[in-house]
Amino acid sequence: MNSPVDPQFATRIRASFGRQKAMALIGASLGSVAPGAVEIALPFRGDLTQQKGFVHGGIIGMIADTACGYAAYSLMPADCSLVTVEYKMNILTPATASLVARGEVVKAGRTLTVARAEVYAQDGKHVATMQQTLMMLAGRPDHPE
Amino acid sequence: MNSPVDPQFATRIRASFGRQKAMALIGASLGSVAPGAVEIALPFRGDLTQQKGFVHGGIIGMIADTACGYAAYSLMPADCSLVTVEYKMNILTPATASLVARGEVVKAGRTLTVARAEVYAQDGKHVATMQQTLMMLAGRPDHPE
Amino acid sequence: MNSPVDPQFATRIRASFGRQKAMALIGASLGSVAPGAVEIALPFRGDLTQQKGFVHGGIIGMIADTACGYAAYSLMPADCSLVTVEYKMNILTPATASLVARGEVVKAGRTLTVARAEVYAQDGKHVATMQQTLMMLAGRPDHPE
Amino acid sequence: MNSPVDPQFATRIRASFGRQKAMALIGASLGSVAPGAVEIALPFRGDLTQQKGFVHGGIIGMIADTACGYAAYSLMPADCSLVTVEYKMNILTPATASLVARGEVVKAGRTLTVARAEVYAQDGKHVATMQQTLMMLAGRPDHPE
Repeated sequence: MNSPVDPQFATRIRASFGRQKAMALIGASLGSVAPGAVEIALPFRGDLTQQKGFVHGGIIGMIADTACGYAAYSLMPADCSLVTVEYKMNILTPATASLVARGEVVKAGRTLTVARAEVYAQDGKHVATMQQTLMMLAGRPDHPE
Repeated sequence: MNSPVDPQFATRIRASFGRQKAMALIGASLGSVAPGAVEIALPFRGDLTQQKGFVHGGIIGMIADTACGYAAYSLMPADCSLVTVEYKMNILTPATASLVARGEVVKAGRTLTVARAEVYAQDGKHVATMQQTLMMLAGRPDHPE
Repeated sequence: MNSPVDPQFATRIRASFGRQKAMALIGASLGSVAPGAVEIALPFRGDLTQQKGFVHGGIIGMIADTACGYAAYSLMPADCSLVTVEYKMNILTPATASLVARGEVVKAGRTLTVARAEVYAQDGKHVATMQQTLMMLAGRPDHPE
Repeated sequence: MNSPVDPQFATRIRASFGRQKAMALIGASLGSVAPGAVEIALPFRGDLTQQKGFVHGGIIGMIADTACGYAAYSLMPADCSLVTVEYKMNILTPATASLVARGEVVKAGRTLTVARAEVYAQDGKHVATMQQTLMMLAGRPDHPE
């Protein structure tokens, strides 16, 4: 349904993800990268948890946010970057397992893109759902300016 | 305006925060703890950044989420715990600085609490604003069950 | 996937919708009613518009909110009612046409249900997407108390 | 704190509100109009209610949405219009009374504005809180094109 304007989108996204030190910090890795759909995997680690031993809600938000962002970015031109305008996430069940966040584009507009991410646990449980708005910054590079 | 039902709320929150390994991972610390209002501080670190060198939006979400959660928790009885139902955050400006998240209770209901957090940078810039819903789990302890 | 605990759920929902004077005011009608999935139709009318002649965003919110609510309600016991805790909606494109809102349950919990609605225009355009949280009120009737 | 770029902002907003047929339908009226802060009043009417006799959540959303929109619009140039990108609203308590929605700007950016609205009942009860994102359409008139 979605066709990328930059045929090198996957290479561009893998390089960008590699610059995300926060993703390295939590041990997240980039999974499949398709036009308008990107996956982020997060192995369970004790140091990602909150006071009850569940994966911290904000950590779940980090991978959902990143999956939405790269799903949106996959459909954008090579010379742009993007910012997260806002997101809303429901946590559906507490998680004590490895997670995967699947981001996909709902609507790619000229300036704004709306994306969604579903986060699942290893055992298939639906852990969280996110709805997000992103803004394209035309002609602004995707690295420190 | 808000009066805590547990006079030991601050001690309880500091102990709970101390069990949050995810907060230790990102270097966040608990600031002031008042009834219905809690602050979380986050010194800037390179390993908290995304691909453009800004603090990762999800990291901003982590401290805002936690500040809201403890603001809500401060007004709850000692023998309960709570879960984040959902949150929505707008990122107002990119940040490359130390941050503080100020959570406060908007409405403390019997089962659900609505809270809000404002995140500011060291230089006073308003970085993000979050609106959150939390649910009290009566008679359920705030540590691994 | 979802199985209703009350086999008379459709009758119950049609009666409840019939008591919604606000739905009558805007000319909305109940479409299909299935377990965990409910549709609301809204014919275009000039008096539903905002200053530029588009259907008012809040009107779009009304039918999406109601579609989510009845999708959630379809899976609940006969003797309960429910309240909308919160919702978040992205408007994807302005609308000057008849609309249909399709609500469906994402996760039906014991107390809280998360639902989603997609709003489409007559011509198939995706107009809005909503993510919503609802709370069941056990043993509380679905009519004025 | 906020200074309007168009000194005639109040006149412009009152004219725009007058074109909102949906506001007339529900009986809403424009209250105070200040730079970055706008109020909408809604007298209680039986035909604004849902199945339990409370003001429909979507109706509450309509006035909160409109209050946020005009708060944002008050700070924009005369020759532009704006669209609602998204909003998120928590309903804090059911309402069976006249309401007022107070919208105010949180951050007015070049393209996007973030606003918030608080909805109160006649008796002072806090009924709802909304967080909203709006986008300015430069050089696009605020009437049917």
